[in-house]
Order: sequence, then C-alpha cells, then structure tokens
Amino acid sequence: MRIEVICTGDEVLTGKIVNTNFSFITQKLEDFGLPVSWETTVGDDREDLLLAFQLAGQRADAVIVNGGLGPTIDDLSQEIAAKAAGVPLALSEEWLARMEAYFARRSRVMPPNNRKQAMLPTGAEVLDNPIGTACGFAVDIGRARFFFTPGVPRELRRMLEGEIVPRLLAKSGVQTAVYLKRFHSYGIGESHADTLLAGIEDVVPGGGVKLGFRAHYPQLETKLTIRGSDMEDIRCKLAPVEAEVRSRLGNFVLAEDDRTLEGVVLDALASKQDTLTLVETFTSGQIAARIGHLPGAEAVLRRGIVSRNLEEICAATGLAPTELTEISRESAEAVARAAQRASGSTHALAVLVDLDEGADRIEFAGTICLAIATADDVSSRRSRVVGGRDWVRLGAVEMGLDCLRRYLQHLPVTERIDFEKV
Amino acid sequence: MRIEVICTGDEVLTGKIVNTNFSFITQKLEDFGLPVSWETTVGDDREDLLLAFQLAGQRADAVIVNGGLGPTIDDLSQEIAAKAAGVPLALSEEWLARMEAYFARRSRVMPPNNRKQAMLPTGAEVLDNPIGTACGFAVDIGRARFFFTPGVPRELRRMLEGEIVPRLLAKSGVQTAVYLKRFHSYGIGESHADTLLAGIEDVVPGGGVKLGFRAHYPQLETKLTIRGSDMEDIRCKLAPVEAEVRSRLGNFVLAEDDRTLEGVVLDALASKQDTLTLVETFTSGQIAARIGHLPGAEAVLRRGIVSRNLEEICAATGLAPTELTEISRESAEAVARAAQRASGSTHALAVLVDLDEGADRIEFAGTICLAIATADDVSSRRSRVVGGRDWVRLGAVEMGLDCLRRYLQHLPVTERIDFEKV
Repeated sequence: MRIEVICTGDEVLTGKIVNTNFSFITQKLEDFGLPVSWETTVGDDREDLLLAFQLAGQRADAVIVNGGLGPTIDDLSQEIAAKAAGVPLALSEEWLARMEAYFARRSRVMPPNNRKQAMLPTGAEVLDNPIGTACGFAVDIGRARFFFTPGVPRELRRMLEGEIVPRLLAKSGVQTAVYLKRFHSYGIGESHADTLLAGIEDVVPGGGVKLGFRAHYPQLETKLTIRGSDMEDIRCKLAPVEAEVRSRLGNFVLAEDDRTLEGVVLDALASKQDTLTLVETFTSGQIAARIGHLPGAEAVLRRGIVSRNLEEICAATGLAPTELTEISRESAEAVARAAQRASGSTHALAVLVDLDEGADRIEFAGTICLAIATADDVSSRRSRVVGGRDWVRLGAVEMGLDCLRRYLQHLPVTERIDFEKV
Repeated sequence: MRIEVICTGDEVLTGKIVNTNFSFITQKLEDFGLPVSWETTVGDDREDLLLAFQLAGQRADAVIVNGGLGPTIDDLSQEIAAKAAGVPLALSEEWLARMEAYFARRSRVMPPNNRKQAMLPTGAEVLDNPIGTACGFAVDIGRARFFFTPGVPRELRRMLEGEIVPRLLAKSGVQTAVYLKRFHSYGIGESHADTLLAGIEDVVPGGGVKLGFRAHYPQLETKLTIRGSDMEDIRCKLAPVEAEVRSRLGNFVLAEDDRTLEGVVLDALASKQDTLTLVETFTSGQIAARIGHLPGAEAVLRRGIVSRNLEEICAATGLAPTELTEISRESAEAVARAAQRASGSTHALAVLVDLDEGADRIEFAGTICLAIATADDVSSRRSRVVGGRDWVRLGAVEMGLDCLRRYLQHLPVTERIDFEKV
C-alpha cells in the first residue's frame, strides 16, 4: 500500500513553523509497518492544493492531509477536497451539533465563522476529533482514500492514532512488522562504517534487513531496519545481524537505540555511587552541560571548573602554577589528579585544548590532551583534531565523554579515530 | 519566478530527522524576496526521485534539491539528476582534485568510495562546497534550473548563501534591491511583539516594508524586509522604521543583525578590560559554554563554576556553608559577591535555580535567582519560569546572560517578561 502525506499552510511552507507534524505522522505510521513514500508541502493556495490532491490521488492508495480545517478564510482543505472529489460541499448536521455542544460545555456561544468547519464534501466519512472543533474526514480522490486531519498537534495525534491508523491497517491487509535498531558511535566516519559493515544485510538469508546511516558530527548513527511477518520473526532476524554490527564496530559503539553517551556515562557512575569532577578549557562548560541537567546528575556531578587560563585552573584545583605551564598529556594528568584530590570525587576528567594560532578556517586545528583520574589511577590521551574552531570544540567534548565511557567500561581509552590527524 | 524545494533521504521521509534544512532554505529565500511555492520529500528511492525531479521540472523555474550527495550507495542524487537531465555521469577531475586535497590537508588518504562524489551529470555547473566533500552542482531538468545541495546543515547553509541565492537573484531578473534588518529580543512573546509593532509598516509611506517574526525560544527575531530601487532607497526607508522598532521594543532589544547576546556581553566586558566569573547550578555550564569558546573570551571569562550542590558552591567560592542554605535573591547575591572576591574578576554572575519536585511535564516550573556583583555593587533578580525542565534551563541561561547585558548597559536588570509567572 502506497501512502503519501500532504502538509498544508503558509506557516509551514515559509518555514515559520518547523514541520514536526510530518515527522510525527511518518514515525507513527512506520511504527505500524505503514511506511510513507512521499510528502508534499503546499501553502494556502487553491491551485497548488488542488494539484497536490490530484497528483497524490493518482499515485497513492492512501493520503493523509494535515492542516487547513480551521474556521478562517485561509483554511481551504474542505473546499479543495470537494472540488478534487468532484462533489459539492454539504453541511454536516452531526458535526454542527457537536461543535455547538463543544462551545456550550465551555459556556460560550459558537462564533458564526466556525460553521464553516462543518461543511464537508458530500458523502465524506467523519473522523472524530474529541478535543477540538476541526472535523476530520475521509473521502476518495482519484484512486486514493484521503484522510484530512487538523494542524493542531495534539488534535492530529489523537485522530491519527484513534481514527486513521486502524483504517490504514484494515486497508493494507498486510501483516508485516517493522523494527528499527540503532547504534551510536563516535570516531568512525560514515564511509568508514559503510566499509566496515559491507555485506551485513546478507547475514540474514532471504533479506528483510536494510542498513542505513545518519551522520551528525561528531556522532554517527548506524541503523538496521528489519522487516518480518511478526515481532518473533523480527527477533530471529535481528539477533545475528545486531551481534555482527557490535562485533564489527567494536569499542566504538557508545550507546544503542534511545540511549545517549552522556546517559551511559551518568548511569555507569551512578550505579556505583561514583562522583565526577570536570575541568574544561576551550570546551567552556559544554561537557558539564551535557551531563549536569540530567535527572540524577545532581548526585554525580560534584563540580565543573571552566577556564581557559592555566593559572586559574591551578588555583581552582590546588596545583602550584609551576606544575602547569603547557598543555600536554602529563599536565592533563596532573590537573585530573589534582581535581580529583581537591574535590574528593571518585573520578575527575580534565580536557585541555591547545588551539592553533590565527583566524578560524577549515584547516584550523587544536591539540586535545585529556586525562581521567581516580584516587589511585590515571589514564590519558593526546589527539590532534582539525576542521575549524567549532569542530575542534565539538570533537573535544565528545572525545572527553567517550574516553570517560571507555574508562568506565574498562576499554582502551586511546583508539585511533577517523577525525584525528596523526 | 516559481521556486520549489525537494528534500531527499529516508531519514527525513521516515521522520528520524525533523526537516530543519527545509525551514532554513525557505526562510533564507523568503528573506531575499524569493518565496518557495512547493516542497516535496522523497526517500532514497530511484523511481520516486526521478518522478519528483520530473514533476518539479515541469512546474518550476528553479528547484533546490537537498541531500543525497554523500559517498554511500543510498546517495542517489547525482545518478538520478543525470537520468532526469538525459545526460551521462562524468568524473569531475576538478572536484576529485579538490577532494584529494581536502583529505591530504587532514593527513588522510581519500577512501575509494568518495570518488563517487565527483561523478556529476555531464555539463553540470559546480557549486562550491569549501567545507565538505559533497559537490554541489546545477543542471537543467525540464524547464527548471536545479541546484543540488548537501544534507549536512552547515555545508548547505554556506552553499545556499554563497552560491545559490546570488544565482536565483540573477535569474529572477527583478531589479529591486532587498535588505533584511533583524532585531533580537528576549522576554517578549510573538503576539505581544506583533501588538507593540502594529502599524510599523506604515511608517514608510508608499510601502516597501514588511514585518515578520521568527520565534526560537527563548529569543524572538523581529525581521523587517525592505524593498527599494537600490541600496540608497533602502537606507532612506529603513532609517525611520528601524528607529521606531528600537523605540517600541526598548530595553528588550539585545542585539541586531548577526550580533548575538553572548557577543554583546563579551564585547561590553572586553572593551573595558573587565573580567567575568560565572557560577551555575541547573544550567550546568550552558552559560559558560555560550561565551567561553568565543575568540577573545580567554581574556574575559576568568572562571566558571558548575555544581548543583550548594555546599560545593560554597567550597568553590569561599563562602561558609551556613551562608548558603537555600536559593533566594539574597543567597544569589552572597554567591556572586563571594565569587567576585575569590576570583578577583571585575564582575561575577551567579544563576541559581530551584527546581520543583516531580517528573518533567509542561507545568513543571523552576525559580531562578540570579545576581551580578562587582567589587562595590550587587544587583539581583528573582523569576519563576514554567514549561518543563528544558524550558526552565534554557530560560535561566538566557535570563542570566540578558540580565548581565542589561547591567553592563546600565539598563534595569528587572523588567517584567512574558515568560515568567507572577
């Protein structure tokens, strides 16, 4: 079954609103094994709306239209739906009564322009909206069943789940299930991961596994979309292929599915009632900001110290200024040890960055020296990252957190990554 | 001139990524008087891509395609562009050399699969991408000029502004000049600003001024699009209307055009060789992270202290634990004074947040108590912000920085804002 979505409204078309309704619709349908093939956004424009409805009506089996059901003159969905379906608009006495009751419950009289919301294409099926005045409806245009939904997000959500998904499932008749498995990594570029995972889709004979990536520097998301007859079939297909992904990406996998790097680090510390002190220079509090606001972090993050002045860092950690005159692995170790001692936390992470001179440019680089100290151990790493000030900063934040994750998971803190210059 | 946008990629079509690239493109073009009429999203699917290119090529004069220029097998834009244009793919020696140099500068050897990124439709015009390996290009399909852009946001942004907007303006042939004037504010909601600025477009007789807003919590951007025969005409129109906007929005205007709140604060401090110490709790380093990485900040931001534990804050600032037992205006003042004294900086900003109990929800609130201290002065503010943990945190970061801006500009630190609960 081919499904399309049409989003309407000048606010979405001009970018004043980011189109989160569309991502909600398509994610929700994907969860039910009902993938969306095509999305169209048009403004509050009669000609474009009509053309969009006609084109989708030629291509698709089902079309979800979002927006344009309101009471004002720029809400055109019912009018154009009727035109595209080749039927006149007619007053739905049923919906008019529902709206009058809606206003009566709020001790208000229905304004006259709301009557427009009860004008539906003749023969349309009403889709209930228990929390608003916009009447959803379904009607045939071309060879497709069209489902018209309100633009207000909470009304859309309720109508999609309660009224539309059941109708789409019944219409599709197919019983395949779909599952998305995700792996998050730091340090492997997309093309490198693509090479490492070559042939992974063939681990499951007979298919049903699709590999994909989403790069959002500095992290990479590796995705497996698994299709099967039901969830049991999916579990059988997923098990060998997810084991293979973990094996090939190895220590670089920092979290899976909805988990995050900072969440993994926080949980590893919290599970042992450990505490953390952070010392940052050029990352300027970004490492602390990734962890500190999370629920539970108040018991773990003891102190964060931010300064780009080495003397200040000495003053804040109790080091003698003579002990920290340059940025190196050794000085990062000294800072981490001193911060751990001074704060009494079980762990300290110090991330020192030595920036190149000169203006920001794509070749601009920085040297990252970081160390993780406990009462009786210290581990450190030096790395040179290039790509401009922002990339160096983002890279240093991620490397600091990921090295801490590796340390807490007893993995090597230093392992060659694609983003560093050797 | 009719402009369409085609967004490609399974990530966008399945809603794993919210399509912010589209809102960026359409807003940017709108700013230059180049409205977008139609947007299409399709996945990494050869048939749908081809159909989308063909349909847009029949309707539009210019089409911007986003995504699908990467090195992996699911990146199909060049291949389908060539098919739709009816020409073969050919290796761009120019781009291949650029990519090899790109990798060489990073001391890496170009992986073989990146070669695919230099395969362009024969006769395509290269659109430069100085910060990535994806080659933008322009080619004719149907009656439209197609501009292919990378999916990586910062590469898209640079290419759109540097390469595509100038070509679209030239193609549109309109001889009017367009100028966008922007005001950034914190504390006024969009409808309030709309009321405050009612009638502003009529300040210039004969028109040519268009008012618009873009809300990105917690800041609001107020935009004036000015059209004129040339830049001199625009300057004449802009002068009275921009003065009127400044007068009506008053102390709430925190920066104009490309300036930022953190940049204004940093410059105000740096211009007097002043220095700053920050103390943060729930904002967890986000205030420091807004300032600390900026060029020049190393001489201004002396120290940032992050902790959600009041005893830790006492230890870090030299306060006795008995002086800080609860979060109030008075305790924020005590912390700011102590931090200023302990660090020897000219200014200290302390932002303490007292969060409500319980799970995150839309009614979740926090009380923000902040203070700014110098050697002989202190100023403070208390405010209650509602809207969930993230909104409280973002609000506290912005309020801290904005109150510091107000203090440095000798404006009242406390002025009622729309986002606080009284």
